[in-house]
Amino acid sequence: METMTKTGPCVRGGQSLVFRDAPYIVSAASVTGSKEAEGPLGKLFDVTSDDDLFGAKTWEEAESTMQKEACVLALGKAHVGAEQVRCLFGGDLLRQGIATSMGVEALQIPMFGLYGACSTSGEALALAGMSAAAGYGEYMLAVTSSHFGSAEKEFRFPLGYASQRPLSAHWTVTGSGAFVVRGAAGEEGERADRPKYDGAKRGAEKNCGAGQRQSSGDVEPESFAHVRIEGVTVGKIVDYGLKDSQNMGACMAPAAMDTIVQNFTDLGRTEDDYDRIITGDLGCVGQSILFDLVKGKGYDIRQKHLDCGMTIFDQETQDTHAGGSGCGCAAVTLASFVLPKIESGEWKRVLFVPTGALMSTVSFNEGASVPGIAHAIMLEHWGA
Amino acid sequence: METMTKTGPCVRGGQSLVFRDAPYIVSAASVTGSKEAEGPLGKLFDVTSDDDLFGAKTWEEAESTMQKEACVLALGKAHVGAEQVRCLFGGDLLRQGIATSMGVEALQIPMFGLYGACSTSGEALALAGMSAAAGYGEYMLAVTSSHFGSAEKEFRFPLGYASQRPLSAHWTVTGSGAFVVRGAAGEEGERADRPKYDGAKRGAEKNCGAGQRQSSGDVEPESFAHVRIEGVTVGKIVDYGLKDSQNMGACMAPAAMDTIVQNFTDLGRTEDDYDRIITGDLGCVGQSILFDLVKGKGYDIRQKHLDCGMTIFDQETQDTHAGGSGCGCAAVTLASFVLPKIESGEWKRVLFVPTGALMSTVSFNEGASVPGIAHAIMLEHWGA
Repeated sequence: METMTKTGPCVRGGQSLVFRDAPYIVSAASVTGSKEAEGPLGKLFDVTSDDDLFGAKTWEEAESTMQKEACVLALGKAHVGAEQVRCLFGGDLLRQGIATSMGVEALQIPMFGLYGACSTSGEALALAGMSAAAGYGEYMLAVTSSHFGSAEKEFRFPLGYASQRPLSAHWTVTGSGAFVVRGAAGEEGERADRPKYDGAKRGAEKNCGAGQRQSSGDVEPESFAHVRIEGVTVGKIVDYGLKDSQNMGACMAPAAMDTIVQNFTDLGRTEDDYDRIITGDLGCVGQSILFDLVKGKGYDIRQKHLDCGMTIFDQETQDTHAGGSGCGCAAVTLASFVLPKIESGEWKRVLFVPTGALMSTVSFNEGASVPGIAHAIMLEHWGA
Repeated sequence: METMTKTGPCVRGGQSLVFRDAPYIVSAASVTGSKEAEGPLGKLFDVTSDDDLFGAKTWEEAESTMQKEACVLALGKAHVGAEQVRCLFGGDLLRQGIATSMGVEALQIPMFGLYGACSTSGEALALAGMSAAAGYGEYMLAVTSSHFGSAEKEFRFPLGYASQRPLSAHWTVTGSGAFVVRGAAGEEGERADRPKYDGAKRGAEKNCGAGQRQSSGDVEPESFAHVRIEGVTVGKIVDYGLKDSQNMGACMAPAAMDTIVQNFTDLGRTEDDYDRIITGDLGCVGQSILFDLVKGKGYDIRQKHLDCGMTIFDQETQDTHAGGSGCGCAAVTLASFVLPKIESGEWKRVLFVPTGALMSTVSFNEGASVPGIAHAIMLEHWGA
């Protein structure tokens, strides 16, 4: 840390920022589809739906519904009104981020649309954390989503075509995760001069019928009091020249390595400083490449690594090939599985590193390579 | 301003932030195609190309080339190395923001991909300004682009199809604008721990042949010393239910009104407080709707309004229907025409309001409406 520069709200160096007054993630919500409900984390999600259309007519509208529902749930857990949120940072995988635009419209929160492929949950949390830590507002909202049906249609083939997929392919998670971030220096009782969200606009009527609300019982807290965003490492685009869009794990692993090693270098840390290093959706192919690449830099993260894409589905029984993927994969795993462990203190410090493969159907059909990007969020348990 | 809350780096209220130590736009660069070169602003652009492919094989690659070229030019004008830039905020209109991902890859700057349709230049400048004002880095880079060929292919039909367009349609600007933003509190001589950009990666070899560098002479300054980002008003999604994707001016005008009036309300200002109120690409149809909507709120901006889409092309001779549009339209007009007037002090305070129509081919083919969004950047002449 000795080479880092101290400025107002942070200490910074290389690609990393460490906040002086770290913002808190005060609540998180997860909404998923049926296959995710059957997986190992199924009982941890807030809302799951047997109907992957969530009562809508199209996959895109279903994804928007999930995203809005996740936002409303996260706000409800934190007892924060949409009108209290200064900015929303959101994104998805669809062209022109349409799931987010249509999904969050009804909340009427000033919004920044983002695109970082499957790394977008990290991008959204980084910008929400940076904005909250800077004092630009008491509350920020970060949300991302993906949907198996809309993603297959966007990047591959319509589901009815039933195309075969190679074993290196991923299964896009149907899910949306939302996070309310609160600045440490936020004033109590601040209200922005905006009308209250009344749920009366686009799609609101479709929310409730389709999803089953899980019983949260006594185990899982409704909101968090001990989860801080210690800092962020903003990722660069990393391109090893791979061109196989059906092997996204290999395309993203170099970016994950780059950001993880940059985090270690910037902060003078190693894998020993984290209880877990959690990537977004490298899957089993990408994981083994990541281990090798990180080892080449002199670190060994095998004992600390966990991949959301390998956690959310059961590889033995669910036939998801390399693992889960998508903007929703890391987001719902973080919301339902990772954050409660940080809240409880089981994990004291986690490096959360969602990874994205930067491509479009046009780019890979034109023969371009598939570069990757990964943003790292340093999460820590704070307080008694 | 009496209802605003004072926090560390800003005064805030409603949807607006006013920076305490306002960041500076220290340089800007514009790269455009041939039709833009023939328009009223043609001689003001830094680089124009007779070849709208910019030496590349595809429209998408051409757009990436423009975007990289604009970044390199803006950095060069400011005498700032890519390795000194803490974060890049960039976006375009293409699916999965591929023009930006492929365009800025070679610069190796930690990056946030954005999507706000044609409002993205405002989104990028807002986030770059917020990050610089907070002290997250000395230098930030904001860049956006659009390309007539890639946009027609993305949203409408391939150019070879030669489809007729209604008079309310816009002509997507082929261009990219980049802006170097510097925090007021930045330390001199800071260097991030990253390798220098050497132009040796993707597409760098294609940069120089295609573009004609304009002679900058003595009139236009290479860098700016007097342009500050006073603050921002972050836009909400505004949906009046319009569904005509060939009339984007009408779809975006309500969002422009909403953000402009919000800015007035938050800051206790009126049109009298600005020398110009400059929208991105409403065109002539959207402009007349904006005037009516703003009048309904008790303001009259007719004497102060200017639209980049109506400025960049000559409506009499260039057959561009409602006017120019695209992520590049507002960006290159700001870089080449607006900022020099603020630098010289001819305009003391400008409200720059790029507007975006949130849609995709999927959303409008599925019958969804086309909501709009607009972000306002308060620009001011500062110093002697």
